[in-house]
Amino acid sequence: MRVVTFGEMLMRLTTDPTVRLQQSNLFTYYYGGAEANVAVSLADFGVDTLYISKVPDNSIGEACEKYLQSNQIDTRHLLKGGDRLGLYFVESGIGNRSSQVTYDRKFSSFSQLKQEEVNWDRILEGADLFHTTGITLALSEELREITLEAMKQAKNRGIKVSFDFNFRAKLWSQQEASKAIEKVLPFIDIAFCNHMDAVHLLNIEVLENETDHEEKLTYYYKQIQAKYPNIQVFASTKREVVSSSSHRLEGYLFADQHISKTHTYTIEPVVDRIGGGDAYAAGVLFGILSKWDPDKTVHFATGASVLKHTLAGDGNAFSIAEVEQFTQNVSQEISR
Amino acid sequence: MRVVTFGEMLMRLTTDPTVRLQQSNLFTYYYGGAEANVAVSLADFGVDTLYISKVPDNSIGEACEKYLQSNQIDTRHLLKGGDRLGLYFVESGIGNRSSQVTYDRKFSSFSQLKQEEVNWDRILEGADLFHTTGITLALSEELREITLEAMKQAKNRGIKVSFDFNFRAKLWSQQEASKAIEKVLPFIDIAFCNHMDAVHLLNIEVLENETDHEEKLTYYYKQIQAKYPNIQVFASTKREVVSSSSHRLEGYLFADQHISKTHTYTIEPVVDRIGGGDAYAAGVLFGILSKWDPDKTVHFATGASVLKHTLAGDGNAFSIAEVEQFTQNVSQEISR
Amino acid sequence: MRVVTFGEMLMRLTTDPTVRLQQSNLFTYYYGGAEANVAVSLADFGVDTLYISKVPDNSIGEACEKYLQSNQIDTRHLLKGGDRLGLYFVESGIGNRSSQVTYDRKFSSFSQLKQEEVNWDRILEGADLFHTTGITLALSEELREITLEAMKQAKNRGIKVSFDFNFRAKLWSQQEASKAIEKVLPFIDIAFCNHMDAVHLLNIEVLENETDHEEKLTYYYKQIQAKYPNIQVFASTKREVVSSSSHRLEGYLFADQHISKTHTYTIEPVVDRIGGGDAYAAGVLFGILSKWDPDKTVHFATGASVLKHTLAGDGNAFSIAEVEQFTQNVSQEISR
Amino acid sequence: MRVVTFGEMLMRLTTDPTVRLQQSNLFTYYYGGAEANVAVSLADFGVDTLYISKVPDNSIGEACEKYLQSNQIDTRHLLKGGDRLGLYFVESGIGNRSSQVTYDRKFSSFSQLKQEEVNWDRILEGADLFHTTGITLALSEELREITLEAMKQAKNRGIKVSFDFNFRAKLWSQQEASKAIEKVLPFIDIAFCNHMDAVHLLNIEVLENETDHEEKLTYYYKQIQAKYPNIQVFASTKREVVSSSSHRLEGYLFADQHISKTHTYTIEPVVDRIGGGDAYAAGVLFGILSKWDPDKTVHFATGASVLKHTLAGDGNAFSIAEVEQFTQNVSQEISR
Amino acid sequence: MRVVTFGEMLMRLTTDPTVRLQQSNLFTYYYGGAEANVAVSLADFGVDTLYISKVPDNSIGEACEKYLQSNQIDTRHLLKGGDRLGLYFVESGIGNRSSQVTYDRKFSSFSQLKQEEVNWDRILEGADLFHTTGITLALSEELREITLEAMKQAKNRGIKVSFDFNFRAKLWSQQEASKAIEKVLPFIDIAFCNHMDAVHLLNIEVLENETDHEEKLTYYYKQIQAKYPNIQVFASTKREVVSSSSHRLEGYLFADQHISKTHTYTIEPVVDRIGGGDAYAAGVLFGILSKWDPDKTVHFATGASVLKHTLAGDGNAFSIAEVEQFTQNVSQEISR
Amino acid sequence: MRVVTFGEMLMRLTTDPTVRLQQSNLFTYYYGGAEANVAVSLADFGVDTLYISKVPDNSIGEACEKYLQSNQIDTRHLLKGGDRLGLYFVESGIGNRSSQVTYDRKFSSFSQLKQEEVNWDRILEGADLFHTTGITLALSEELREITLEAMKQAKNRGIKVSFDFNFRAKLWSQQEASKAIEKVLPFIDIAFCNHMDAVHLLNIEVLENETDHEEKLTYYYKQIQAKYPNIQVFASTKREVVSSSSHRLEGYLFADQHISKTHTYTIEPVVDRIGGGDAYAAGVLFGILSKWDPDKTVHFATGASVLKHTLAGDGNAFSIAEVEQFTQNVSQEISR
Ligand SMILES: [Ca+2]
Ligand SMILES: [Ca+2]
Ligand SMILES: [Ca+2]
Ligand SMILES: [Ca+2]
Ligand SMILES: [Ca+2]
Ligand SMILES: [Ca+2]
Ligand SMILES: [Ca+2]
Ligand SMILES: [Ca+2]
Ligand SMILES: [Ca+2]
Ligand SMILES: [Ca+2]
Ligand SMILES: [Ca+2]
Ligand SMILES: [Ca+2]
Ligand code: NI
Ligand code: NI
Ligand code: NI
Ligand code: NI
Ligand code: NI
Ligand code: NI
Ligand code: NI
Ligand code: NI
Ligand code: NI
Ligand code: NI
Ligand code: NI
Ligand code: NI
Ligand code: NI
Ligand code: NI
Ligand code: NI
Ligand code: NI
Ligand code: NI
Ligand code: NI
Repeated sequence: MRVVTFGEMLMRLTTDPTVRLQQSNLFTYYYGGAEANVAVSLADFGVDTLYISKVPDNSIGEACEKYLQSNQIDTRHLLKGGDRLGLYFVESGIGNRSSQVTYDRKFSSFSQLKQEEVNWDRILEGADLFHTTGITLALSEELREITLEAMKQAKNRGIKVSFDFNFRAKLWSQQEASKAIEKVLPFIDIAFCNHMDAVHLLNIEVLENETDHEEKLTYYYKQIQAKYPNIQVFASTKREVVSSSSHRLEGYLFADQHISKTHTYTIEPVVDRIGGGDAYAAGVLFGILSKWDPDKTVHFATGASVLKHTLAGDGNAFSIAEVEQFTQNVSQEISR
Repeated sequence: MRVVTFGEMLMRLTTDPTVRLQQSNLFTYYYGGAEANVAVSLADFGVDTLYISKVPDNSIGEACEKYLQSNQIDTRHLLKGGDRLGLYFVESGIGNRSSQVTYDRKFSSFSQLKQEEVNWDRILEGADLFHTTGITLALSEELREITLEAMKQAKNRGIKVSFDFNFRAKLWSQQEASKAIEKVLPFIDIAFCNHMDAVHLLNIEVLENETDHEEKLTYYYKQIQAKYPNIQVFASTKREVVSSSSHRLEGYLFADQHISKTHTYTIEPVVDRIGGGDAYAAGVLFGILSKWDPDKTVHFATGASVLKHTLAGDGNAFSIAEVEQFTQNVSQEISR
Repeated sequence: MRVVTFGEMLMRLTTDPTVRLQQSNLFTYYYGGAEANVAVSLADFGVDTLYISKVPDNSIGEACEKYLQSNQIDTRHLLKGGDRLGLYFVESGIGNRSSQVTYDRKFSSFSQLKQEEVNWDRILEGADLFHTTGITLALSEELREITLEAMKQAKNRGIKVSFDFNFRAKLWSQQEASKAIEKVLPFIDIAFCNHMDAVHLLNIEVLENETDHEEKLTYYYKQIQAKYPNIQVFASTKREVVSSSSHRLEGYLFADQHISKTHTYTIEPVVDRIGGGDAYAAGVLFGILSKWDPDKTVHFATGASVLKHTLAGDGNAFSIAEVEQFTQNVSQEISR
Repeated sequence: MRVVTFGEMLMRLTTDPTVRLQQSNLFTYYYGGAEANVAVSLADFGVDTLYISKVPDNSIGEACEKYLQSNQIDTRHLLKGGDRLGLYFVESGIGNRSSQVTYDRKFSSFSQLKQEEVNWDRILEGADLFHTTGITLALSEELREITLEAMKQAKNRGIKVSFDFNFRAKLWSQQEASKAIEKVLPFIDIAFCNHMDAVHLLNIEVLENETDHEEKLTYYYKQIQAKYPNIQVFASTKREVVSSSSHRLEGYLFADQHISKTHTYTIEPVVDRIGGGDAYAAGVLFGILSKWDPDKTVHFATGASVLKHTLAGDGNAFSIAEVEQFTQNVSQEISR
Repeated sequence: MRVVTFGEMLMRLTTDPTVRLQQSNLFTYYYGGAEANVAVSLADFGVDTLYISKVPDNSIGEACEKYLQSNQIDTRHLLKGGDRLGLYFVESGIGNRSSQVTYDRKFSSFSQLKQEEVNWDRILEGADLFHTTGITLALSEELREITLEAMKQAKNRGIKVSFDFNFRAKLWSQQEASKAIEKVLPFIDIAFCNHMDAVHLLNIEVLENETDHEEKLTYYYKQIQAKYPNIQVFASTKREVVSSSSHRLEGYLFADQHISKTHTYTIEPVVDRIGGGDAYAAGVLFGILSKWDPDKTVHFATGASVLKHTLAGDGNAFSIAEVEQFTQNVSQEISR
Repeated sequence: MRVVTFGEMLMRLTTDPTVRLQQSNLFTYYYGGAEANVAVSLADFGVDTLYISKVPDNSIGEACEKYLQSNQIDTRHLLKGGDRLGLYFVESGIGNRSSQVTYDRKFSSFSQLKQEEVNWDRILEGADLFHTTGITLALSEELREITLEAMKQAKNRGIKVSFDFNFRAKLWSQQEASKAIEKVLPFIDIAFCNHMDAVHLLNIEVLENETDHEEKLTYYYKQIQAKYPNIQVFASTKREVVSSSSHRLEGYLFADQHISKTHTYTIEPVVDRIGGGDAYAAGVLFGILSKWDPDKTVHFATGASVLKHTLAGDGNAFSIAEVEQFTQNVSQEISR
């Protein structure tokens, strides 16, 4: 099993949740980025993963590379150069106070990537799946073209293509996103998106009189599939944010005209929600590549995501066995 | 807008909540004191604040001064001298274990303050409001006289007077408190007190057959107002302590014969409840000075208090916009 | 009041709950072991305690000795020698993620203890109670004989004997445990065990159609008592593990054909559950030695156990007065 | 006394000195920048200081503002806007390992500053001295013009102008620096530069057969003064870097055709050398503004710089009395 | 061997050496006091030690008691009551920056001690030596009388009396000290004092034309002995403070008309010098009680003191064997 | 370039240098072992490294594996099973206090390794060099045979064999070591040993009237080479331990009848000396594999070792370029 992911690597600088950024002088820093996070999770499941990005040719870029290597990710095609690594500051929330994100990712090496720097022919060799997200598309016109080129080459080689909408309002408008995403959808096999994406980015007509989340999603996924019959699998989570420290999470997976879902997981305390969605995506992709049935897949993916919320840092760090032990277990009691 | 607050500055020495004081050798220390905390909050709302106190003329007194200055508080009238800064030790509680407070505030510089050291004429110049609390009254006979003098001068200048009962059983008896508080009440416009204060300190007749907290408070506030018609606004919070880590909070404000209240805020986890009452008082005072309607004021004040519980340290650190974003928001989800 | 406890001392090496063991390079370490923990609690209640164990004759053994001494435990009979101290690694769980225990206790000095090293005659002099647990029995055939010898001598001297089943599936099989425990039961006055122990270790017939936990326990305790009429008191807790961070706990005590129980305590957050059972056992033993009535005893013991969960480390650290303040109190609000 | 400083504010992100950046996930962060550091020192000496810069209009810019305010610096003319705050990573060296700096300051708000954003007329009102450094000149062509404009206006108003060469090879070439610096030198009263600057940036003929540092500096300063007779005072330090943890420092001051110097201070351990030069500059400026004799000034400035090396962070934090106590003292023994 | 020490217990609140007190919010706290420190060291050498003091009857007093107990000190005569524990703040120095001490010890429970609270008859029972210092005398007139009484009773019982001058200029004047110390000297067997004490407190004529420290001390000790022939042993250290981080230390011991000294120990880095003198005193007392020859004693005592400087906290923590291994060893190389 | 190293992996548990093990409850832990450390260094120089060891099949063994992988070491032949990982406790010394090592490595999985578990045929495939140390020989008779077998197979394949004497007095006697080492020496090309090893382990006649270290080493290396002409290169360091915090280091390399040496490096402060010898060995091996001249090799190796002393942890973390920058540089000044 071999997966290629493509996207921007970011450094996250985060404060302790009991102080404001202006009161502190300590950051914990993590490397992340949606596509890197997916690669990290998949590597923990034993998948051969190759990650394509561009980082600066300095100590920060080198630290990125070592982070990826320590997670058993193939970095032989990682590009070095450009001005800087994108980063963002997170004033960590807790309880009633929400986390505050301040982006400082403009002018990043990846966002300046040029088409001629990437040799998809060599990168995609031997791959089973290619994954990227809407964040990559948001960063530049050139990146949209590079992504399109990657997807086309993947299609030609019979490699599955996975795409997570990951809409970020701080990066682009719905209108821009809509235009760019509609261009890539015809090449996609697996889509991570939810009903808001359907309405705001794909202009699917709003469902009136809906009864529950399951039915609602089924409607929207079918509508999207009607427009893009190439998309075989849709997935998303439903997250209820009770407070910064308490979330409720459900996983949804649509395949073969049928939606599968999990029961509701209560996550309390939330140690770190960042990367939770990427852990879910990795779980779904792993289930699909393993040809598991949808119910097993959606539980595995949601379990992996729930576990991610108990660890600080963007990347998940659980083996298949550990995720399964969690999804099959009834108690968090110590075994000794 | 210019506010003068008057009271004792304290250093709080607090342990990590997972160990007992006797097991630890690390204190986190904060500067506080009810009146300083109110000043800190008001300064964050953009109010000109002047704080009057007396701290020792040594490195600790200097640190107090710098703390106040870093919070944009006018310290030009801060007195230096005397023996020591009052301090107290807090063995932080968590979950089922409550916090343990050990006071070491006797013989403090402020508690030895002499009338001739304070020039109210110069201090109150240009002020819109004067605020102090029952803690100041509890510290010495002389401080009761100084406070009375301040209130009288404020009255003469048309400056609003605000008083928080803040009864501390470790500092004085109900009987002593009652006597001292009754002397200042005729000069007060805004009173922070609750039904317990009404019964135990002001000897209001107990209400039998009460139905709910709102009606109960209305009865007591009306009774107090009957005796002290000068008091135009009453405010308090209702706090349910589920455990040291989980509180429920409601705000109440009585003005124009009408009580306004908030819904119940669940605070979980409680990072630090100390200063929560002062953040509320500051919010109420800011609403009154801004001539907001009572409903807006009580929500703003309670929201500020709730947010305070998510930060370590006595002083709040939120702007008007941040408090309003919280009171108007429905989710603690990260925005990115 | 003088109590002797006998068992293996262990070092626990534990990670911060927000990282995996493989991601961290920091351990917090604690000394523990079921019987040492009971001694630590009893010493805090003012009991003269003597602890018998064997630790290596090096810096680690010395640190064990100092730990015990700093808890006012008599270490004059603590043996030094052998190869090593047993230790175990705990990857601390939080929320949905459970703690992972990795034992490294094989070949410990205590597990190699020889009968001739222990002089029960001198050790038991003046004692009122002797306490050990099933863990001691699990460690070697020789330790089973040493324990049996200790119990016999205690019986001869009129010293009460207390035994906590503490079955550990990682140490031995139910079959081995059953055989060893049945040999010591005839010498026991106070037994800490639950319905699972009754079924799996003592082969008591399973109760069908049970209605609630209280009735169930009564049935099993009566059945055991029928076989071992020497056992006068049975005790156990019922723990519901909602998540690693949220437990519910009830205490049960059976004496004079009657079961006493507490209401349910919600423990949230759980700071550290290890040692919680030992804190309970110490509370029960203290109540029995103090000739308190069962209701008082079971509430004191459960209260002590609940408080233990709020402290990091195996050993409890509360005085009688502090436990009673907790069991009698209704609020965790700070008193000041 | 009123001083205006002008330059770029930076965030420094620094690792613990016992690990490499790639091995760590913790940064301590400080705010700094040569001109801000000078302002912080001067404020501690009681000088009214006003700092002009531009920071982004987000949580990071706000934190900069609060940092300056907590150091009693006037921020009323601090500009907000643009893309980002310049920052740099420091892998802290120790002993034989040197610190590694990785800049990430490109595209900063300050480096994009436009002439029309700065109203020198209002900023310079009431000032006694204007200070900036070569770093400001290095950042853009526009900043060179803005700086020139500021210096001209200062000259017109009879305000002293101070300039620290602060050549940074990572920011520009010697040739570029030379050209820009020569344009500002005619407006300067006080120059911080050393013999390397004289040779490489001002093309002063190299002194052959020099005997010692004092004579060497005298020669170069006289040569520069011959070209720019407006410069009345020259200052610099001589630093011997024995290792990252052990430096030797001497201060030099040239005025009235005479050079004054200090004895050699051994600094061991060096806690943090960053800001050491700025602490020296502030000391020199304070001595000049106070009309102290050169010997007193150079000892005060060097003492302040030495003390800076014992504190983590860019900004110094000593009063006049504390610096003088150090320069006059013979022992670091505790007084008690 | 049984030793009784008598004096004030203090809490030390100390900052990290890389920040100023006003910049920090973390204190490490230690319990100490000259006489308690001597007791802690002696207990580590296996001596039965009893410590007499008075601490408040609250959580802080209890923590003091547990600290002493964890160091195997007999606290059965420790008094509880009064207003507060004396404490002091230490802004830790490093390198060129000296530590800054701010006392807050006024009104302490011990300083208010009354003669009738101490039953010397029971306390001194079985003792071989009684030790106190000039700090105790400095605290009140009453304490001078209590101390005198203790010494007289000790004399009557044939118990050796030891006294450390420990002059603290922040506590009293030389004149007051002189008067009080001269009253106790006739009862003393072992005196810790140096040539400064001889000149300033005992008015010994200054030695002109002295050649070295050894001769100087010999002269002064002989002069004091001439006045107080009861004093059999004098001891002191000579400390050269190169910087806060680098000291040089020599030990001196005068007995039988002969002075013994050590070579010079370089201490670098100095981790914590507080308690270094007390570790030396304990070493001298232990040598005397063990009837070691002066050379062995002075090396043991100085070695113990040097080791103390490598540990944070007031109390030393080395066994006899560990001190001897240090004094006899030539290398600090790891043995493995 | 491909190198195979073989030896025991250990976990080091180390305290902060300002406290004693018995006073602390925090360990920093590192993975190490002489042969693993050499592999880590070589991997940083870009060498393909394969490490053979046996670790337990649990969370600790897995953490070892991930540590090796994150250092780009091939772990495909790492064995899993057995009872435990060897570990040791280090009470970190500082200044005058030396580090105290307490081993707990008995019964480790590696020490129980059986010949049939290791397939040298597959392991050595493609290797250029095989490296192990005397520690491996010390652990069991079986390991001596396994090592001999490995060396023989290496010889047969034309693979260079490197051996570091690494005598550990806590593991075996000189006599046992002598016997075992003499058996492997005939197969060795590169030997790390010093004059003490020559005298005590190889019974080389002591050199009288030696003049300096260089001549001494030359004599001993020639004597050993006379007995074992197969050894082509000898290397060692000369370390002067001024204190735990200050070392002086020189590198020596003997090849082609000629000894090469470095100047003396002063290391102050010593952050962590453990692994310093292994960093040196890796540097020497890399120089030999790169066919560098002896002078370049010995400076590179010693420079790498010196840099290792500035980092916490056993493994070095410097690239070829970074080591060369250090060996060629004259100053530790920050470049910016
Ligand atoms: Ca991983
Ligand atoms: Ca995500
Ligand atoms: Ca503020
Ligand atoms: Ca409050
Ligand atoms: Ca205890
Ligand atoms: Ca237990
Ligand atoms: Ca300042
Ligand atoms: Ca500088
Ligand atoms: Ca001790
Ligand atoms: Ca001392
Ligand atoms: Ca590496
Ligand atoms: Ca080594
Ligand atoms: Ni959160
Ligand atoms: Ni969250
Ligand atoms: Ni989150
Ligand atoms: Ni709490
Ligand atoms: Ni609370
Ligand atoms: Ni609280
Ligand atoms: Ni738990
Ligand atoms: Ni928790
Ligand atoms: Ni527990
Ligand atoms: Ni430096
Ligand atoms: Ni340094
Ligand atoms: Ni530096
Ligand atoms: Ni010192
Ligand atoms: Ni120091
Ligand atoms: Ni000291
Ligand atoms: Ni060392
Ligand atoms: Ni060291
Ligand atoms: Ni070392």
